[in-house]
Amino acid sequence: MGRVVVDVMPKPEILDPQGKAVAGALPRLGLDQFVSVRQGKRFELEVEGDVTPEVLAAAREAAERVLSNPIIEDVVNVVDAAAEVSQA
Amino acid sequence: MGRVVVDVMPKPEILDPQGKAVAGALPRLGLDQFVSVRQGKRFELEVEGDVTPEVLAAAREAAERVLSNPIIEDVVNVVDAAAEVSQA
Repeated sequence: MGRVVVDVMPKPEILDPQGKAVAGALPRLGLDQFVSVRQGKRFELEVEGDVTPEVLAAAREAAERVLSNPIIEDVVNVVDAAAEVSQA
Repeated sequence: MGRVVVDVMPKPEILDPQGKAVAGALPRLGLDQFVSVRQGKRFELEVEGDVTPEVLAAAREAAERVLSNPIIEDVVNVVDAAAEVSQA
């Protein structure tokens, strides 16, 4: 099974109340390194076989037509999950 | 300014109605390659200077204590945005 990761973030000029709320909570936990927090969406799309260029193109189309609202959001990543840098 | 990306996904065993709704909509647009869709959250945490190991550790603590609900969600990525593979 292949997996494509699609990341969608609010456009920079768009107000992000959720991000602001989180940014406000962090210092109360002693985590005062962060000057701002923005919250977006992460999707994982699974396919039967491998993530081919055609699959990535279909994921990009899905990202632009269904997974994001182009007026207030940007699609910032459409990537094969296997290629993703992960340090959880 | 440095940026840390934190990705949070619902635990695999948790029902994901939003992901199911999206998965159901894609074939109607001719996008029938995807067997499932899961929706999670992506955060971008900004810091004044560089993303140091200490900053990453603080971001991981924020991820576990504020940005995710450990009962239903997993923190899947805590990574310097500069190191992220991006192909939007």
